[in-house]
Amino acid sequence: MIKNKGELLRSEETDLEARRLILEAIEFTLSSISPHRLIKEHVKRDGDKIQIDNLSIDLKNVNKILVIGGGKASALMAEALYSILGDKINYGVVVIPEYQNQKFYTGSIDLLKASHPIPTIKSIHASLKILEIVDKLSENDLVFCLISGGGSALMTLPMEGITLEDKQIITKRLIQSGATINELNIVRKHISNIKGGRLAQKIYPARVIGLIISDVVGNPIDIIASGPTAPDSSTYKDAIEILKRYNLWDNAPESIRKTLEKGVNGLIPETPKANDKIFERVHNFIIGSNELACESAFSYLSSKGLDTMILTTLLEGEAKEVGKVIASIAKYMKIEREGIRGFSIILGGETTVTVKGSGKGGRNQELVVSACKFIDNVRGLAVASLGTDGIDGFSDAAGGIVDSYTLSRAKRMGLNVESYLQNNDSNTFLKMLGDTIITGPTGTNVNDIIIAVCTT
Amino acid sequence: MIKNKGELLRSEETDLEARRLILEAIEFTLSSISPHRLIKEHVKRDGDKIQIDNLSIDLKNVNKILVIGGGKASALMAEALYSILGDKINYGVVVIPEYQNQKFYTGSIDLLKASHPIPTIKSIHASLKILEIVDKLSENDLVFCLISGGGSALMTLPMEGITLEDKQIITKRLIQSGATINELNIVRKHISNIKGGRLAQKIYPARVIGLIISDVVGNPIDIIASGPTAPDSSTYKDAIEILKRYNLWDNAPESIRKTLEKGVNGLIPETPKANDKIFERVHNFIIGSNELACESAFSYLSSKGLDTMILTTLLEGEAKEVGKVIASIAKYMKIEREGIRGFSIILGGETTVTVKGSGKGGRNQELVVSACKFIDNVRGLAVASLGTDGIDGFSDAAGGIVDSYTLSRAKRMGLNVESYLQNNDSNTFLKMLGDTIITGPTGTNVNDIIIAVCTT
Repeated sequence: MIKNKGELLRSEETDLEARRLILEAIEFTLSSISPHRLIKEHVKRDGDKIQIDNLSIDLKNVNKILVIGGGKASALMAEALYSILGDKINYGVVVIPEYQNQKFYTGSIDLLKASHPIPTIKSIHASLKILEIVDKLSENDLVFCLISGGGSALMTLPMEGITLEDKQIITKRLIQSGATINELNIVRKHISNIKGGRLAQKIYPARVIGLIISDVVGNPIDIIASGPTAPDSSTYKDAIEILKRYNLWDNAPESIRKTLEKGVNGLIPETPKANDKIFERVHNFIIGSNELACESAFSYLSSKGLDTMILTTLLEGEAKEVGKVIASIAKYMKIEREGIRGFSIILGGETTVTVKGSGKGGRNQELVVSACKFIDNVRGLAVASLGTDGIDGFSDAAGGIVDSYTLSRAKRMGLNVESYLQNNDSNTFLKMLGDTIITGPTGTNVNDIIIAVCTT
Repeated sequence: MIKNKGELLRSEETDLEARRLILEAIEFTLSSISPHRLIKEHVKRDGDKIQIDNLSIDLKNVNKILVIGGGKASALMAEALYSILGDKINYGVVVIPEYQNQKFYTGSIDLLKASHPIPTIKSIHASLKILEIVDKLSENDLVFCLISGGGSALMTLPMEGITLEDKQIITKRLIQSGATINELNIVRKHISNIKGGRLAQKIYPARVIGLIISDVVGNPIDIIASGPTAPDSSTYKDAIEILKRYNLWDNAPESIRKTLEKGVNGLIPETPKANDKIFERVHNFIIGSNELACESAFSYLSSKGLDTMILTTLLEGEAKEVGKVIASIAKYMKIEREGIRGFSIILGGETTVTVKGSGKGGRNQELVVSACKFIDNVRGLAVASLGTDGIDGFSDAAGGIVDSYTLSRAKRMGLNVESYLQNNDSNTFLKMLGDTIITGPTGTNVNDIIIAVCTT
């Protein structure tokens, strides 16, 4: 699955054994979070009976089966679900990113392409198509909703009168004003016909099975893909207050102000709340997450005899600084255990990069380039960081790997690590060293995983 | 030892039990790293026999006993040593920071004051005084050298012809050019008459007992107080190369260029190397360190039934980002252990703050203010960060403490945590909340310690 694994396992000037263990753990992890694997683990079928975790459904009592959804992992999710239930699925519409060009075998489930990460009119068309097919279902119908990261942009449907441009204006201003992601989502959910449980509202009274691969730290189902099948706890009033708090209300697009005011006055319905009867018909399952990825890496590395520990699956912070902290932890463990046995530490989450330079890189690559300075000469130690979607920032790499020889190799090659870091040029730096990890798009996304391994 | 402990243990809107455990652990730790305690633990006397760890000395074979040294902890070290060996100490000179105004009982050991952190002529006078008393000693003489953080500025003695100003110019330019602390030290050691083992060279053939309290991550004895009693592995040639590397050689002060050139040409002696015979007479002991502080906190918290782990004693990174990572680790552990039993994590080291605002704060306070955003509502969890010297940046606090209520309390008080962070105004923020930790100067310094405790 790692395309350049052979090259990464050079025997000269590397901590070869640590590298090998890390790369094997990554491959094991990626396979364990593939949408095919996840769907097959969670959706079991025996003739007319299907079992999704603790939920049993007898298909004899089901009228139509529909499949909808969207996100970066949703094409493969649809393919897997089709391979299990193909003969029973009536039809479906799943929205996927334009760049996913391979052939997917989804039979009666239509895959519609839309743009990502900036939504265009294609996202609106796809969303309308979804709403069209879930219209007027009965309570004997069953709708699988395949949700994954990116779904928010791919399934976009502003309320009547609000243009995509209006929505983008308010999103941009909120971000610039320092609004939290939570505040941003409260506003967005109240101007959308699909987010914040609106999709579930439209599907009612049919039964909804939400199968969710989470790309959000902590797996909040109301945030992943903006929660189309999840209850929303916020109100129109909250949305207006947030815009006022950041002094954005007075100059907000007219259409947005009108919509929110109508909402407050009860002229358009509120997002569905947790106690709404529609959620009696909704079953959401997180089938893939960063936790699962970290646990897979944990199983693999433990099985190789390493003392292994997951430090967190909620990692946040500036990539360069996070790299220092991880290096300082790994280095300390190495000193503490000198000569005993190998160990590894695993972290999951999503770091950020404050771009100041004009280089080419990504958060995972920047993290390890920063770490290499701090693990210099700590023999036996290697650190890798990887975006599980296979795409790290604006580069063709999924991430990178460094070890205790990296800094001195770079110096000998005349590469000044500090300049590459300052220029956010981690991809170029790692490429020169031959230490980017290339997987290509994996068709799944459960955030990032960082693995440090130290062999004795 | 924590002056405002009572106030910090408010019962309203706090994770009281976690706070209590952290503050008690801090007090236990500070007492375990007090210079008095450390000297008494490492220097044992039985009549005419003294034992310093594995080294035994029979005072009957000793002619004179001298005590020299300098640093922020050195006054208390001298006081403790005097209380053990007062009747045997002939005389001594120890340099301490001007701001240490309390009365120290050091008998025949003179305490000279000099400025810190910027050396002035006082540091030179004090250093000359030290060299004067160690001149012409015999091999039956014994010199205790009490070394602690700050010693480098307090004991300053540029070589002949080099002014303090010359030295400051080159130091400043190297820092601005991005030289590493190691490179900076190589240059400084080669223009000094006291750093880089020069002091040990002057004391030879008398025996040297270096008692060292480390304020440098990893405890490298050649870096702490610029290693007056430690071998130096660098050369005059290295120093010149470093200045050339950063294009500082051509415009370096004439006096510095001449000195380094003389050194390369063998006209002035090289710093002493590890195989130099003088080091047969030198015994350096790290008696206090960040490891020890972390281990004390570990003992205390373990004894209270918490699952406790030292994550690192080598922590580095931008305080604000480090705070996020620590919060993400603590939060994950809380989720993983829900309802089982309390835990704590301990980290040691020294973070940095890139000052962009005009506020009042320090690295420890900034770290916890950043962390409070990420532990919001994670009930039972508190995080504190503390400079063991009792002084965090430009404030009267040693550090600060936050818990799962802090963010909402701040919001209710109308404090926007983001603005305080952006303005590097962590001290003001924490003061408004009543959450700075005040100890006053502790007279010791083994860097910073961060403790997170979560009770069930």
